[in-house]
Amino acid sequence: MNELNIMLQKQLEHRTIREFKEESLPAEKFNDLMEVARRTASSNGMQTCSIIRVTDPAIKKEIAAVCGQEYVAKAPELLIFIVDQYRNYKIAGEKNSFNESAKDLDRFFSAFTDACITAQNVVNAAESMNLGTVYLGSILNDSEKVCEILNLPQLTFPAIGLGIGYPNQNPQLKPRMDMSLRIFENKYSSFNNYLDEIKDYDKEMNAYYDLRDSNRRVDSFSDQVATQFKNVIPKRQKMINVIRKQGFNLNLKDEK
Amino acid sequence: MNELNIMLQKQLEHRTIREFKEESLPAEKFNDLMEVARRTASSNGMQTCSIIRVTDPAIKKEIAAVCGQEYVAKAPELLIFIVDQYRNYKIAGEKNSFNESAKDLDRFFSAFTDACITAQNVVNAAESMNLGTVYLGSILNDSEKVCEILNLPQLTFPAIGLGIGYPNQNPQLKPRMDMSLRIFENKYSSFNNYLDEIKDYDKEMNAYYDLRDSNRRVDSFSDQVATQFKNVIPKRQKMINVIRKQGFNLNLKDEK
Repeated sequence: MNELNIMLQKQLEHRTIREFKEESLPAEKFNDLMEVARRTASSNGMQTCSIIRVTDPAIKKEIAAVCGQEYVAKAPELLIFIVDQYRNYKIAGEKNSFNESAKDLDRFFSAFTDACITAQNVVNAAESMNLGTVYLGSILNDSEKVCEILNLPQLTFPAIGLGIGYPNQNPQLKPRMDMSLRIFENKYSSFNNYLDEIKDYDKEMNAYYDLRDSNRRVDSFSDQVATQFKNVIPKRQKMINVIRKQGFNLNLKDEK
Repeated sequence: MNELNIMLQKQLEHRTIREFKEESLPAEKFNDLMEVARRTASSNGMQTCSIIRVTDPAIKKEIAAVCGQEYVAKAPELLIFIVDQYRNYKIAGEKNSFNESAKDLDRFFSAFTDACITAQNVVNAAESMNLGTVYLGSILNDSEKVCEILNLPQLTFPAIGLGIGYPNQNPQLKPRMDMSLRIFENKYSSFNNYLDEIKDYDKEMNAYYDLRDSNRRVDSFSDQVATQFKNVIPKRQKMINVIRKQGFNLNLKDEK
């Protein structure tokens, strides 16, 4: 294998790691990860992703409570990637230049994108160092609480969390649906019968053992989807109100 | 350098490539990129990112027109990463299971996150093959038009575009602000004077030549921020209305 394909190999072996060794990351490795974050592509070069590195065990526990997942508190590194229009709002403000558009929802989305691609760049860097990672979308179960815990100012918002450490488990590669269901040429196309299309995938998922639940078999994919849609978390469902509270304007048609 | 650090080295050398050779990607390489997309982490394993591969030159031109950037039409590969709650909505529907929560805005955000991290995973894979990439956040300049061009059904939305090809330019590494402005421990902290904090960075940016504009010097970072905020694109600013039109419920406090 040529050297560069080692990157690809790592990406194709990606698994979520939820149990880490107690060993913490050497400072040098952490700094490398942050240098990768720094070099990540950024919408218009605006660098609107900030990172909160949570080291205080009490704050880790508070975040874990929002996530509803105890293992979050045990991650050697816990990073929260932040939508940050606050910094540039202040920069333009100090120049007495127009900065009100920092509050527009499209700027929120640019920064949200910056935050997500930065997180994935860090994930790839971490995995290249044989570290394991777990994404924490569950920080949005109560985004208002996370804003409060992390002291987030106006025009910032938590996009995604990430736990990093040395793996203490070796989960099976999780089955994925065929890309013919997910890639389309030129135009989106629907299928007549999705259950029929994913029949084999449903069976494959049934045979997979998820380490999360003490090695029990998992549901078929279609059953997982059904379960997922029933799991409505009211505070999460209404997150737009927190985005508004953080100072962003939705610019709804009926708003001026 | 050990083999794995080659990944890191590639990440630290990341530059946006806007001019590509005419050479197209071999099918094998494209398939590898899509296999990486397939293996990307996904919120709750729901795989809510789809990809439209734009190969039709006429459609490429339409997308380029939305972006306001001619080079978009010339990218050998043009991928649009899509928020896709439609597929799982149909799957649960065919099982006669509750699927209305597919429309909740938090599901939109989970899928938007899936789309962005998938895009970055593909970027890292492409760069490991010595390909160049350009993110196209500008597809959101008119998201309604992009939905129309790509025939996007309800519960889908374009998150981000990506051009890929063999680089035909060798841009300088773009200066980035110091991470001390972007990483915080446990709590977000503000600075008293941002212009003072970025004084050196502003100077450094002044000395950088951006290949985009025929090798002319670029503005200082703080000037770029000021210019960026003045550049308000009304259709982009009001993108929430398109997200709504695509069938997502905002769940505003005053909505039931």
